[in-house]
Amino acid sequence: LTLSVQASRIDQEPIKVIEPATGLNTAMVELGKNLWFDPRLSKSNAISCNSCHNLATGGVDNLPSSIGHQWTIGPINSPTVLNAEYNFVQFWNGRAKDLKAQASGPIDNPKEMAFTHQLAVETVASIPAYQTMFTKAFGSKDISIDKVAQAIAEFEKTLRTPNANFDLWLKGDDKALTAKQKAGYQLFKDIGCIACHSGPAVGGQMYQKMGLVKPYKTNNPDTGRAAITNNPSDKHFFKVPTLRNVELTYPYFHDGAIWSLQEAVEIMADVQLGRTLSKDESAKIVAFLQSLTGEQPKVTLPSLPPSTYKTPQPKL
Amino acid sequence: LTLSVQASRIDQEPIKVIEPATGLNTAMVELGKNLWFDPRLSKSNAISCNSCHNLATGGVDNLPSSIGHQWTIGPINSPTVLNAEYNFVQFWNGRAKDLKAQASGPIDNPKEMAFTHQLAVETVASIPAYQTMFTKAFGSKDISIDKVAQAIAEFEKTLRTPNANFDLWLKGDDKALTAKQKAGYQLFKDIGCIACHSGPAVGGQMYQKMGLVKPYKTNNPDTGRAAITNNPSDKHFFKVPTLRNVELTYPYFHDGAIWSLQEAVEIMADVQLGRTLSKDESAKIVAFLQSLTGEQPKVTLPSLPPSTYKTPQPKL
Ligand code: HEC
Ligand code: HEC
Ligand code: HEC
Ligand code: HEC
Ligand SMILES: [Ca+2]
Ligand SMILES: [Ca+2]
Ligand SMILES: [Ca+2]
Ligand SMILES: [Mg+2]
Repeated sequence: LTLSVQASRIDQEPIKVIEPATGLNTAMVELGKNLWFDPRLSKSNAISCNSCHNLATGGVDNLPSSIGHQWTIGPINSPTVLNAEYNFVQFWNGRAKDLKAQASGPIDNPKEMAFTHQLAVETVASIPAYQTMFTKAFGSKDISIDKVAQAIAEFEKTLRTPNANFDLWLKGDDKALTAKQKAGYQLFKDIGCIACHSGPAVGGQMYQKMGLVKPYKTNNPDTGRAAITNNPSDKHFFKVPTLRNVELTYPYFHDGAIWSLQEAVEIMADVQLGRTLSKDESAKIVAFLQSLTGEQPKVTLPSLPPSTYKTPQPKL
Repeated sequence: LTLSVQASRIDQEPIKVIEPATGLNTAMVELGKNLWFDPRLSKSNAISCNSCHNLATGGVDNLPSSIGHQWTIGPINSPTVLNAEYNFVQFWNGRAKDLKAQASGPIDNPKEMAFTHQLAVETVASIPAYQTMFTKAFGSKDISIDKVAQAIAEFEKTLRTPNANFDLWLKGDDKALTAKQKAGYQLFKDIGCIACHSGPAVGGQMYQKMGLVKPYKTNNPDTGRAAITNNPSDKHFFKVPTLRNVELTYPYFHDGAIWSLQEAVEIMADVQLGRTLSKDESAKIVAFLQSLTGEQPKVTLPSLPPSTYKTPQPKL
């Protein structure tokens, strides 16, 4: 019985299990981890990838929008890097096709790390221990921004969160979810959330309009996908975000305006589905969403190799 | 023979071995580690202890002076927290008597974390998982700024760096140092550096005048110890810093003006001892100082518990 329940849930439920990553290049992962935490990829030497995607806080910064170089407040909420490999494209508006294409962007974004790719490469190349790490990862100590991005992406692929209670239930453990969580999941499917939020990441598979049946009120001027396609009908289309670990990734939506998960759920029901949820209904869905919090990656801080006299100095 | 060499070096050398910390309250260490990495102890929710004392970079930020709330540039270089427990007092001017007395200072320093102690305590108290951690560490879920400081201090006590090559040599392994390093250590003792830099931390045991025999030229207006004692004869007296891991803690001196360790050594010889070192001599001392880099603490990032509706929201 258990086996057939298991097989049927895994096959038939629209949400899929997250498994730990396998088959990665471990030398490249180690290099990528160093680069992920290295603030010397920023002009100030004070901002690393981890500043805005803190692996101690669900891969986000828990701010409405991020703080970049010289305390510049960014235009949009920082999405989680946990399970980001599952996204069909990267960024809210999908302008990067994958993790590697994304990873060099923040380095020379003047509102984020505010560096140049050339200075970032010079920085890394000036440090002998990095040359050794590049040689182990790529077979050559030649360093390029492309390899920097590839190594960071390889590290990001390790950032999965397996063994959420929901996944244990998918694999056949009936007791892994409470009755309230099961009821919340049923509601999530019945009222249509699942149409947009499905797959292993419970999202990340398509663009959808924010405010499908009713406009979403926001002060954020971002037009979403339309900024890329220049097609007015793409206005306010965003990549549907993952709901994995969503209890950790507040505040919610691209404008980071909503702090309460229950409120975010009620807004979704309203603007995407034209439906007013009772407090009891939204609380059940929240309970289900909390079952999507998985094991957070166990990341030991690297000991970054010191700079040399050749390393460009920080500019605050 | 080895045994007696060992015994005599350990007894007779003025620099002492660093051993890993023992006898700590492990529940308090774990709580302290969470607090150490928690940016919610700052007004912006973007700055943690680790922002300025990055455990990936020798317990410092490698900036001339730190970046605090709203990109405020601080007045003085951030010292390492590695082995800081050995300091006879904390801060450059010794205004805190120990790690616990120090730890609540940055939280309500307007140039650093810019929070208030009351809001910091409210923040921590609003998070159920912290209440559990406090109960494990202190036997009660009552939270105070004093306990916050005590827990952070307990974590900081774990931040020792044992097994530097110099320590292996002290323990009797003749091959742990190169001939150049041994010559550098001999010079360090012969010319008088050891008078101020000794003990397990190779410093941290006394105040001394910066510019003892010749003024040190700096744009930094800090008067050191005199700001605390109001005694003009204490002008430019600073706590002698540790030289453990000094190859990682550039830039050097309280003003963070000197990026090169060799230059820092030559300046010390000049302004503290009235002595001009040859390049060969300063290079030997640098080689010795590099033997003081120990094993960096292996710190796994905590998974910080999420905020609740009671948690004060960030103010950027
Ligand atoms: C100053 C803040 C900041 C820094 C630093 C930063 N990011 Fe981001 N990151 C963001 C924001 C904001 C977005 C969303 C931007 C958008 O979608 O237009 C984002 C998006 C992403 C995404 C896409 C996730 C998704 O679901 O679409 C990934 C992956 C990512 N960042 C990785 C990185 C890496 C790797 C680095 C370092 C090289 C980095 N980030 C540095 C703020 C930052
Ligand atoms: C038609 C597509 C669609 C439907 C249906 C839908 N969503 Fe969404 N969901 C989105 C999009 C697009 C976003 C991102 C919107 C934004 O940030 O502007 C989103 C965002 C969210 C967020 C915030 C995630 C974050 O990290 O910011 C939550 C929570 C959420 N949805 C839950 C639900 C629930 C619960 C339902 C059903 C009541 C639902 N969604 C129905 C498309 C949909
Ligand atoms: C914005 C930067 C910044 C932040 C955040 C910060 N510090 Fe510091 N820290 C400094 C600077 C700068 C000094 C030196 C100040 C002085 O001596 O006057 C210092 C000094 C110290 C010292 C004394 C070391 C010595 O050798 O005297 C310790 C210990 C320490 N900090 C621990 C902490 C802890 C614990 C936190 C978090 C609760 C923290 N710091 C947050 C910048 C910072
Ligand atoms: C009379 C006391 C004294 C003597 C002798 C002395 N030092 Fe220092 N040393 C200090 C003090 C005080 C500082 C901190 C000065 C400051 O930052 O303004 C310091 C700082 C340093 C630093 C920078 C550490 C850091 O993290 O910023 C180095 C390196 C150093 N000393 C090495 C040496 C060497 C090598 C010698 C011998 C050539 C030496 N010192 C002799 C008192 C002394
Ligand atoms: Ca970005
Ligand atoms: Ca968010
Ligand atoms: Ca320094
Ligand atoms: Mg301080």
